[in-house]
Order: sequence, then C-alpha cells, then structure tokens
Amino acid sequence: MTDIDDLPVRDELRGKSPYGAPQLDVPVRLNTNENPYPLPEPLVERITERVREAARNLNRYPDRDAVELRTQLAKYLTDTSGHEVGLANVWAANGSNEVIQQLLQTFGGPGRTAIGFEPSYSMHGLISRGTGTGWISGPRNEDFTIDLAAAEKAIAENRPDVVFVTTPNNPTGTAVPAETVLALYEAAQAAKPSLVVVDEAYIEFSHGASLLPLIEGRPNLVVSRTMSKAFGAAGLRLGYLAAHPAVVDAVQLVRLPYHLSAITQATALAALEHTDTLLKYVEQLKAERDRLVAELLAAGYEVTASDANFVQFGRFDDSHTVWQKILDRGVLVRDNGVPGWLRVTAGTPEENDAFLDAVRELKKEQSA
Amino acid sequence: MTDIDDLPVRDELRGKSPYGAPQLDVPVRLNTNENPYPLPEPLVERITERVREAARNLNRYPDRDAVELRTQLAKYLTDTSGHEVGLANVWAANGSNEVIQQLLQTFGGPGRTAIGFEPSYSMHGLISRGTGTGWISGPRNEDFTIDLAAAEKAIAENRPDVVFVTTPNNPTGTAVPAETVLALYEAAQAAKPSLVVVDEAYIEFSHGASLLPLIEGRPNLVVSRTMSKAFGAAGLRLGYLAAHPAVVDAVQLVRLPYHLSAITQATALAALEHTDTLLKYVEQLKAERDRLVAELLAAGYEVTASDANFVQFGRFDDSHTVWQKILDRGVLVRDNGVPGWLRVTAGTPEENDAFLDAVRELKKEQSA
Repeated sequence: MTDIDDLPVRDELRGKSPYGAPQLDVPVRLNTNENPYPLPEPLVERITERVREAARNLNRYPDRDAVELRTQLAKYLTDTSGHEVGLANVWAANGSNEVIQQLLQTFGGPGRTAIGFEPSYSMHGLISRGTGTGWISGPRNEDFTIDLAAAEKAIAENRPDVVFVTTPNNPTGTAVPAETVLALYEAAQAAKPSLVVVDEAYIEFSHGASLLPLIEGRPNLVVSRTMSKAFGAAGLRLGYLAAHPAVVDAVQLVRLPYHLSAITQATALAALEHTDTLLKYVEQLKAERDRLVAELLAAGYEVTASDANFVQFGRFDDSHTVWQKILDRGVLVRDNGVPGWLRVTAGTPEENDAFLDAVRELKKEQSA
Repeated sequence: MTDIDDLPVRDELRGKSPYGAPQLDVPVRLNTNENPYPLPEPLVERITERVREAARNLNRYPDRDAVELRTQLAKYLTDTSGHEVGLANVWAANGSNEVIQQLLQTFGGPGRTAIGFEPSYSMHGLISRGTGTGWISGPRNEDFTIDLAAAEKAIAENRPDVVFVTTPNNPTGTAVPAETVLALYEAAQAAKPSLVVVDEAYIEFSHGASLLPLIEGRPNLVVSRTMSKAFGAAGLRLGYLAAHPAVVDAVQLVRLPYHLSAITQATALAALEHTDTLLKYVEQLKAERDRLVAELLAAGYEVTASDANFVQFGRFDDSHTVWQKILDRGVLVRDNGVPGWLRVTAGTPEENDAFLDAVRELKKEQSA
C-alpha cells in the first residue's frame, strides 16, 4: 500500500505526524484554550445578517485588502490600548497562524532562522519548519520566565532573523515585562537587525497591558493577535497584527491574493460590533482563572503564575498518566509535552468545578 | 520615511509589488473570471441557516479535518466525473491557492523546483517563490497548446519536483488532452519521480471531461479544483484537491491546524446542496463563452480556442492601450501580460453585449 513515505515529499517531513490536540468527545473539554461561552444570541443574529449580505455578492472576489475589517480592528486596538493605530498599521489573515506564516515567508524562509524561548507556542517552530526557516530553541528559567541574559546571549550568538516573544506565554501562562521585550528588541537589532514578533494571542486575559504601544518608532516590532480567545471565536480563524505600515506592505508580497473570504470578513465585523459584551466574558474568565490557581494551590499542586485563560499545573513524575486519569473522570486537559506539567483551560464555573473535583480526587488517591 | 526596503525582508522580495488585478469601480467587470450570477436567493437563505448554526458553536475550533465538507466534495466529484472518490481522496483549503501552497510546502520548497508551461496561471510561479521553490518556465506552442516534445525535454533536463498542468489553461482557455497529461506524468516519473498537479479550476466549463479518473493507480497525480468559478463563490475561498489518500495525509503535515473556518465549511456545504442549480448557470456561461468566441471572430479579432469561462483575444501591437480603450468604454478586461493578447470573462448576456459593442467600435475606429 502506498503511504506518505512512498511519495516524493520533502525529507524533513518523513516520519512526522500532523500537529493538533486530540479532538475527543468528552463532557468537559479544557484542552485547547477555547472560550467556553457561546456567542450571545444577538451576535449570532448579527452574524447571519452580515453573512446574508455578503452571500448575495459571493460570486465576486472579496475585498483583497479587507479595508473595513482592518479599520475596525485598528479601532478596537486603539480603544483597548490607548495607543492610536489605523488601517495602515493592521493586517489580518486566517488565524494568527497564517499571520505568522506570512511574517516568516517575508522575514524568515530558506537560509534564515527564527528563535523562540521554549516551552512556548509550538506552532512558531512548526511554521518555521513549514516555511524553510531554521528554528532555534532559546532558553527559559526554571520558573518559565525568560532568562534575559541567556536570551540576549542566544540572540547575539545565533543572529536570528525573527525573534518570537509570546506574552502571556503558551503553555505556561507567563507574562513578559515590557522591559524584557525592549531588551530583546535591542539585542535583536544589534545582532542583525531582525524582526521581533510579540505574540499576544492571550493578552486580553492578562493582569498587565498590551505591548502594542512599543511599535511606535520600532519598525521591526510586530504585535500579533487573534479573535479566537477573547472574542470567543476560535471557529472563525481570524488573526491579525499591528506594526509599522511598511510591515503591512511587506506581508502583502507573500499573502495569497484574496486570502480572507467575504464570509470571514463579514463575521469578524459582526463580532467587533459586540466587543463590549465579549470583553465581559473575558472578565469572568479572568476571575475563574484566578480561582483555578488558588484552588490548585490549596489542593497541593504547583502552579505557574498565569496571565492567560489557562493554568499550567504540576508537578508530576509522569504527566501523561495523570492526563489520562483526569480524562477518565470526563475532563480533557492538555499534555503539551512540558515534562512534569499539564495545562488546563479556564472554562465555565461548572467545568472548572468538574476539573477541580477530578484533581482533588487524584490527590486523595495518591495519599491513600 | 521607513518603507519595505528598510525592513529586513528577504532579498528576492525587494522591489516587488503584490499580485492582483486592479479592483476598479467600473460598470462591467470582466477581468477576474468571476461568475456573473449572484447565488440564488434560496441558497443565500440556506447559507444563513447553516452559518447561524455554526455561529452558535463559534467559540470552539472548527472540525480540523473538515470531514463533512470533504465527504460532500467527494460526492460532487463522483457524481460529475463518474469516477468514485471518497473522503480519504479529498482535501480542502482557503482557495485553490492555499491547496497549491500546501502541495509546494510538502513536495517543493527550498532546494527543489517546480515547472509550469507558460503563459499559465501566474500564481503557480508566485507561490513557488513564496515557498522557496525554484521556478522553471516551460514552453508552449504558438497556439498556446503544450508542445509535448519540448515539455518532455524540459522535464528530463530540469528534473523538477512538481509539474503544473492547467486545463483548461488560464489565461489562454486551452484544454490539455488526457494523453498529453499522461505523457507528462510518465516523463515526470522517469525523471525524478515528481508530483504532477493538474489544475482544473475551470474544468466545469470545458467541452471535455475532467481528468480526475487519472488519479487511479497514479499516487503522484493530483487534481486541484475550486468553488470560485462553477459554484459562483469566488468570495468564499474554497479550493480542494483529489488524489491518492497518501497525498491527503502528506499535506496535513504542513497545513496550518484548523485552517478552514467553521463558517467557511458551513457556507461551502450549503452551496454543495445547490449543485444542480449552480451547474445550470455553468451551461448558460458556456453558451455565452461560445457566443463571445463567434462574435469576436466575426468582428475580425483572433481568438484562442477556449474551454473556460473566458476568452483570450487579440492580436494587438500594444495590448495595454487596447485594454485602456475598452476600459474607457466602461468594460474592464484583463491584461495578463501575454504580448498581443487580452482576456475577457464571460459575463451575463448584457455584460457581454457591452463588451462586444466596445470591441466592435474599436475595430471601426481602427479602419476609419
């Protein structure tokens, strides 16, 4: 039988498996950092209205430059960060993964390298591989904060073309202070100069502010965002970035023409009209996240300080066995492959209770 | 002021402009091979129903493997080609451009090459560049058919990793016979072996049949398709491929996870429910395409035989000036950069009349 290895695929793909968490049918799914709150019904109706309008013109290509959508994303960023950005500063694509892919096609690619400080969002490395960009795994401290001296050293020695800084970091939840990002930016400019991508997929859940204002006067600094988490729209696949207008011009050299469908643009615009309602869910989730941290500590687990809608907890001699035991109790969490740790997404209060019951039971079993 | 060239972009991107036809506000737009017929209102309603349902679950990631959609695409291919394909044979992405990008990331990429027979769909070369794949421009005959002997020689000499065959070809409209594709496949396997991508974006408009049955027993042959043209859904961005299941497995190694939004999947499924109605528009457009050919010839133009929803016409000493003169008469056609030729999309009867009036006028002007 013919399988992948019989095809003329690239050598580095041989023997690999596709990325992705198991999609299991489990009562409580706290494994992919989804927002547990369905979109409110008035927003669902607004989406259908806007989609109906877009569908009537679906025989035509969409607005290639997504002008209305980028304008509204810029307004959202301006309103929430206090730093004014406009259409020319913003670019959007099918998920922040596609934003990152376009950045790597433009600033990385064959003969170039990218660095991230791991454990971090594993797609940074995977999309680097997918775009022919060499991947450098930078270090972190034991507590998962960035070891600035070691990171600066890694940048100076490797002279990467792209530097990823994820804040809050996934899967650890760790926020990166502005001073650290600024120091990494300086180090990256001194070494090459290179593009610094600040991945703020979870920033709305942070105790601190967005680093968006840092793009001012720093044309090689990009902030990437997503509507998957705070906007409760993982199914929409809408990622975006804010940066100097020259960066927005540059990614258009590699973007597939008409990459963003008319239906996607219509749906995202509807969601942006309901920003205030959606951000109220974010406040609820932040409170639940803090409750998860407190209850996990009270139950005797270690927890990594979290600024995201998830919590990394441990420590386990064999985290995969613990993952399975939690799953046996009807709760799906994520084993990201960080030795000794698992990750749980903040769900609804009921979902979090089910999770907390499960992990408390496990502790009792252990001590019995 | 900072512009692209001040950024650390890849050297080969310096001085380039983004791909894309001018999006001008003109009464009659016959420049991007769009289907001129808006979706019928019952389909618009079905789309809003399906999208409403999807929107209620939008906080969750979409089905990463798009199983329902791929199953229905397989059914459509089976019904229209008479060759049975199933879920395992079909893959879908955001436009056939993304399908092609995924194929090049898997089978092309750094250190590898792809060949197309030009003039052809220019995105093949552009996406090759975007994925670090070397591009080889293969030859055609003067009448825009593929020069088989020259093509076989080019394949034997260059040993490309990916071979593109577009049928019907864009922008010329030229169909490629099955025997030619088979000969190119044999040549490509003898030389390397390499992946042969048969781009059938316009196949529903062809006088002949799809080459889909050729995938049987040929694991390195891929047929790519789109819903942009025959399904009247350019705004949806839904491309797909049919191939051996191993190819479908292989592209999943490079696809961005959850690349296809829940909204896109819902909309495409609604459109597939209305296949019969949409294919009736295809029949109208084929008749209009044939009328354009006949009337252009009658008016004294040269025409390239067309199996697509567009017609290449000429010849002009200065095609760009003629393009502008047609535009001055309110009709936008496409200058694809093929010296001496322009391309017009088959529109509604009224749009085609407006175009034919314009070009007849130009002939009169010339002879006056």
